[in-house]
Amino acid sequence: MVAMSSLYVPPPKCLEKRFVAPQRHMFGPGPSNVPPRILAAGAEPVIGHMHPEMFEIMSDIRSGIQYAFQTRNKVTLAVSGTGHAAMECAIFNAVEPGEDVLMAVNGIWGERAAEIAERIGARVNTIRTPAGSCFTNEDINQALARHKPCVVLFTHGESSTGVLHPLDGIGDICHRHNCLFVVDCVASMGGAPLYMDTQGIDILYTGSQKVLNAPPGTAPISFSERAWQKVFNRKTKPVSFFLDMSWLANYWGCDGKLARIYHHTGPVTNFYSLRESLAVLAEQGLENSWCRHQEVAEYFHEGLENMGLRLFVKDKNVRLPTVTTIVAPPGYDWKEITSYIMKNHKLEISGGLGPSVGQVLRVGLMGCNSSKASVDMVLEALKDALKHCHKSRV
Amino acid sequence: MVAMSSLYVPPPKCLEKRFVAPQRHMFGPGPSNVPPRILAAGAEPVIGHMHPEMFEIMSDIRSGIQYAFQTRNKVTLAVSGTGHAAMECAIFNAVEPGEDVLMAVNGIWGERAAEIAERIGARVNTIRTPAGSCFTNEDINQALARHKPCVVLFTHGESSTGVLHPLDGIGDICHRHNCLFVVDCVASMGGAPLYMDTQGIDILYTGSQKVLNAPPGTAPISFSERAWQKVFNRKTKPVSFFLDMSWLANYWGCDGKLARIYHHTGPVTNFYSLRESLAVLAEQGLENSWCRHQEVAEYFHEGLENMGLRLFVKDKNVRLPTVTTIVAPPGYDWKEITSYIMKNHKLEISGGLGPSVGQVLRVGLMGCNSSKASVDMVLEALKDALKHCHKSRV
Repeated sequence: MVAMSSLYVPPPKCLEKRFVAPQRHMFGPGPSNVPPRILAAGAEPVIGHMHPEMFEIMSDIRSGIQYAFQTRNKVTLAVSGTGHAAMECAIFNAVEPGEDVLMAVNGIWGERAAEIAERIGARVNTIRTPAGSCFTNEDINQALARHKPCVVLFTHGESSTGVLHPLDGIGDICHRHNCLFVVDCVASMGGAPLYMDTQGIDILYTGSQKVLNAPPGTAPISFSERAWQKVFNRKTKPVSFFLDMSWLANYWGCDGKLARIYHHTGPVTNFYSLRESLAVLAEQGLENSWCRHQEVAEYFHEGLENMGLRLFVKDKNVRLPTVTTIVAPPGYDWKEITSYIMKNHKLEISGGLGPSVGQVLRVGLMGCNSSKASVDMVLEALKDALKHCHKSRV
Repeated sequence: MVAMSSLYVPPPKCLEKRFVAPQRHMFGPGPSNVPPRILAAGAEPVIGHMHPEMFEIMSDIRSGIQYAFQTRNKVTLAVSGTGHAAMECAIFNAVEPGEDVLMAVNGIWGERAAEIAERIGARVNTIRTPAGSCFTNEDINQALARHKPCVVLFTHGESSTGVLHPLDGIGDICHRHNCLFVVDCVASMGGAPLYMDTQGIDILYTGSQKVLNAPPGTAPISFSERAWQKVFNRKTKPVSFFLDMSWLANYWGCDGKLARIYHHTGPVTNFYSLRESLAVLAEQGLENSWCRHQEVAEYFHEGLENMGLRLFVKDKNVRLPTVTTIVAPPGYDWKEITSYIMKNHKLEISGGLGPSVGQVLRVGLMGCNSSKASVDMVLEALKDALKHCHKSRV
């Protein structure tokens, strides 16, 4: 009997302890706090991934995403994964091996997109601009003329640098160059104006755990008719069955077919909470949400400057309202600051990521966390930290 | 202002309705019912995906999976996706383009695995056996000698046909042929004896929503040292960054490195519920769970035969204790039966899948649903359906 042998793996003691999650102010770049109403939705009883009630929930989610993205695209759904899965979904479906793509790199997300495209055998071209800055439409036009990509990817909300990239006009440039315009709005969606159809975006995706305030695990995505035609006319199958949009579009009832064929078991309870978070956004109004994030960000930035701190993004017009990057206070160890604030204020703010590592503190105020009360809390915590953390002579 | 134009997408009315999930007996092949205790764990407040408390939860999950899989593999973690993502994770990491693989097809899962391997450019060989039956170790030995694959995949619990595939001896055969032994235990884990290390399994994966009774959205997976070496020595990167085990192993703290590098935002609340479901399994005892599923299945099968129904899997020794396939009652439309039972008994049983479509009814009694009381409910519902559904002359 194996149970008696030395090969037997006994039940682990660590699981005897009951787990209770600590209460935190989640003011990092995400996940953000999840309001009780959305947590409660996610704790509703599980039903089948293909029950009629589930299809109704999925239909509601599609309508909610169409509203949040400002699109009428029929191919609009939520990927069963986090933002990264949606980025792979966009690239896996839009790009075939050997095709040219152009990744606009002004932070970590463009780098990630380049890495993903390389893995599937695309010819990856990049344009780069220093962390904290943006591309001009003229830069973009020239790069498209030079590289002739079939897909170009921009990050609307670059959470690693705190930049909100302007999108107006890029869609037209892409389409003149016969190229799909793909936008990552994981960190910006709901926090800054975004009009998928009007701005000519062909593929747009986000995550559930930022402004939407749902737990991480689902990722809204939408394909324009132009993007969908490219997917439809592929010569090769996408490398991933799990992320194959033809299958997903059928599962979500957006391919016009009556019968839905079993593809995978969707994360039922995450869909509940995603639906609820979209309902909250619809109730509050998208424009109100955009305005609130902008106002709160400006109030925050003013407070930071009044404290003598500097913002990493110099141009006011391209500051991301959801995630603020603060130049790491000179003379301090940024890690000591974030640890102090977590320990003494139960409040998460984070350091840099990718090109901003060691250079910045990052504060995310997204969805329900975007309020002047939250700003006051963060400013108090920062003041307290700067008073108590070790400062060397600069 | 776009808001006033015809392009504006207004907030959807459908989201004004409050959603409440119906209570169902989830006796299909999955997802199964989620006990209140596990739902409650999933509704704990969200913390960061890289907070120390989160790493502790992930460490507990690893211990729980090691117990459930009966393995001491250090590379043991949960994929941020459903069972399908884990299947892709296994194949994407273990196989390089151009390599030979062998998929043992005795139902839909072998077919899916073959499709996934084809998409990444592997040379896919299959062995096939009729739905409801198994391969002998001699079949396997001959196929390995003929095809010389570097990876072979078996489905332990073939939920489309109701077969529990014997695993003893296959590991040794694979290793003699210098081949990795990959096993899909999505539908069987916790419901039937399985000893990853003793049985020489190199990659094993399951889903959260079957015997574990957690919501769908996470998928435990483990790599043996032999499998890990093959991953480590790859010449090419896996096609997916999201499912790249080198990154995942670091995120989960199983690569021996001190620093954890940000990879993706894990589904925090799904990890809470997965931890809780593993704690339930550890409390109850793995062997007790195996025995209970076997006893309940035998009690169920006896009840079905007493009603005059026939089991699809003829050989008693290879019947899957978690998912039972019943030959579709002659003269009836199986869809009418499942619909009748859902409508009148709020109870899900399902039809066939893949090779068993139209031929069977499938009943899953997994985890908390594996009880004689559940069996009695299903038998009553079936009797009622056979009395009230339309029967043609046979």
